[in-house]
Amino acid sequence: MCARCDDPTHDDAHRSDRRQLLIAGAGLAAAPLLANDAEAQTRRPAEQGPFQVRAYATSGPGAPFAPMQIERRAVRPSDVLIDVLYAGICHSDIHTARSEWGPANYPVVPGHEIIGRVAAVGSAVTKFKVGDIAGVGCMVDACGTCENCRADREQNCLNGTTFTYDAPDKISGGRTYGGYAERIVVTERFAIRIPPGMDLAGAAPLLCAGVTTFSPMQHWRLEPGQRVGVVGLGGLGHVAVKLAAARGAEITVFTTSPGKLSDAQRLGAKAAVLWSDKATMSRLANQFDLMISTVPESYPMQPFIDLLKLDATYVNVGALGEISGLSGMAMGFGRKSLAGSMIGGIAETQAVIDYCAARNIKADVELIKPDQISQAYDRVVAKDVRYRFVIDMTQGRQARA
Amino acid sequence: MCARCDDPTHDDAHRSDRRQLLIAGAGLAAAPLLANDAEAQTRRPAEQGPFQVRAYATSGPGAPFAPMQIERRAVRPSDVLIDVLYAGICHSDIHTARSEWGPANYPVVPGHEIIGRVAAVGSAVTKFKVGDIAGVGCMVDACGTCENCRADREQNCLNGTTFTYDAPDKISGGRTYGGYAERIVVTERFAIRIPPGMDLAGAAPLLCAGVTTFSPMQHWRLEPGQRVGVVGLGGLGHVAVKLAAARGAEITVFTTSPGKLSDAQRLGAKAAVLWSDKATMSRLANQFDLMISTVPESYPMQPFIDLLKLDATYVNVGALGEISGLSGMAMGFGRKSLAGSMIGGIAETQAVIDYCAARNIKADVELIKPDQISQAYDRVVAKDVRYRFVIDMTQGRQARA
Repeated sequence: MCARCDDPTHDDAHRSDRRQLLIAGAGLAAAPLLANDAEAQTRRPAEQGPFQVRAYATSGPGAPFAPMQIERRAVRPSDVLIDVLYAGICHSDIHTARSEWGPANYPVVPGHEIIGRVAAVGSAVTKFKVGDIAGVGCMVDACGTCENCRADREQNCLNGTTFTYDAPDKISGGRTYGGYAERIVVTERFAIRIPPGMDLAGAAPLLCAGVTTFSPMQHWRLEPGQRVGVVGLGGLGHVAVKLAAARGAEITVFTTSPGKLSDAQRLGAKAAVLWSDKATMSRLANQFDLMISTVPESYPMQPFIDLLKLDATYVNVGALGEISGLSGMAMGFGRKSLAGSMIGGIAETQAVIDYCAARNIKADVELIKPDQISQAYDRVVAKDVRYRFVIDMTQGRQARA
Repeated sequence: MCARCDDPTHDDAHRSDRRQLLIAGAGLAAAPLLANDAEAQTRRPAEQGPFQVRAYATSGPGAPFAPMQIERRAVRPSDVLIDVLYAGICHSDIHTARSEWGPANYPVVPGHEIIGRVAAVGSAVTKFKVGDIAGVGCMVDACGTCENCRADREQNCLNGTTFTYDAPDKISGGRTYGGYAERIVVTERFAIRIPPGMDLAGAAPLLCAGVTTFSPMQHWRLEPGQRVGVVGLGGLGHVAVKLAAARGAEITVFTTSPGKLSDAQRLGAKAAVLWSDKATMSRLANQFDLMISTVPESYPMQPFIDLLKLDATYVNVGALGEISGLSGMAMGFGRKSLAGSMIGGIAETQAVIDYCAARNIKADVELIKPDQISQAYDRVVAKDVRYRFVIDMTQGRQARA
């Protein structure tokens, strides 16, 4: 294991500091300097054009994940090539892979909680050097010039954010493939620096689940001592609890799973309430300064909105389908708001990683091998995970070595 | 007409300044000093107990309005007795009178946009003297001690606001009767001072329509030059346009009525758009700093929420039923909020009256007689009013004099 970080897969990467060279010139004529000499023999030079990498894809709604070769673009001057080490499984991956958010474009290679090691950098890259640990979250490109991009809201790019998978790829002309793959090429602007010392598998989910729950706490200024409700205790919810606890907020978790009540308190909540506990729900009316709903599907939100204090906001970060059953009268009474919030910009993604690195905050993960993805999807839907599956992408490589 | 105000019904009220006496003692033993000597002969002394006044009531959903006698409580030390001059007809009156917001308790005497002349004051009253012009809005009591009351949010009293009509009356033990009546008794804390010089009929709607639309502009800090959308151009909407224009905002009105397009601009809007104009709606995406929806019933809000800028808020002040059809994804994209807002507190109601008095802002009203209420209701529902019916309550008295 590396002496400078606790990544068990990270043997001598930091030695690359002194070996690192940038790929020279716009034509990317120089060979990328590889972080891991053992791998260099198996790698087709990225700079010579698009190249094939092994990925894990689904070919249709419900089809099992299987290995396939996908094409990655040649490393451009502003790009980094990342060897994927870990990829979290987000509920969004499942919604997309199963065409639950509209028809997907198969094959789909999900994955937007990606941690890897930089294997090559383009000539203009300044943020990374070969051997660095980098992260890729939910998006890989945006125009950078529109009003929203200039406000660090690349996820709301008015010219169209390029999301990490199953999205039109303006650079290659095809569609994007995500992190369930051995390598990914991404412009450095959309890659996140992962500070030394982070638990890399536990950091992966921070790139979606982390920033998604951190962003509303920042925007609505969750302060120490304020009461925050976290609705749903899954991949996002458990990270939300850890983040809110770090801010000194008083946290109440709302879950449908009796088995998670004790976990909520272990994670940092003061209280945990079952949705079915009407008496407690009633007692908690008008109590909360902020509530964050992490539930990945629609449900009746008004009973939770009723728990907000005057002027407070219920932030929905998980349910992206239709929202119904709100009461105009109940929302008016107390000037309560329902807001949507979707991930965060690149600067905010970097911020949550740095925030968590400084406080040793990480997701609770269960590592799986790439051949266990389909089984993991079923377990996520069955709420049988504590609390995030992360695919150990080094496993496939080692098995084939 | 009085030399000090433009109230045509107000002949010599200001002379009462020098005649005014407070009713002495907790027992209210002294006779109230009456503002209008001509009326004094017909008035049963209020201080001797509950008394009867003529009101206009409906006896069931769809039943026509007809005169009836209702009881008002004796004037307590903190109360003022107000001779009603004008009462606006709010769409809420119609919803309540027709049991559209749940079963009403008949007979119902609506009216919460009330302007009148103070005819008597209790011994402890300091805010009014006999002859003053006073207003009563949507509420007549609240605990005054809860967290929300202490925050000047009496409309959100945690111990239960007493609304002006068809609400449990904690003082009398019965139910409240509103402003479609010749007199009302209200604690001075819930009566609003009407500055000299206001157009009294045009001021009446400010007590509900005014504060309801003013409050979100204050809370969400509508600034000069910002773009605000006003959805629905009726009683509330047309006041919203005038208030937003006074702030120097750039206003776009969204209406279903082609006949109101030119009115919108006359009232102060820069543009007016028909809901059915899909091309313009599409062009206006992501343009508005704030939107205020005054439509008094549910409708698909998401197409309007889509017009908000990043982080902006759609404030629903009119539709108090179920709200459906929101898109979690569309709201998340841009961190857009839907908020409810309901009237405003007493301090804010006074503020909007003072704000409008200083700027000569008043509602566009059509005066009717008390025997025209039922017909006016039908015309409101048919959107056939420009823009608020106000009942001239002096008409009934004059007819019977």
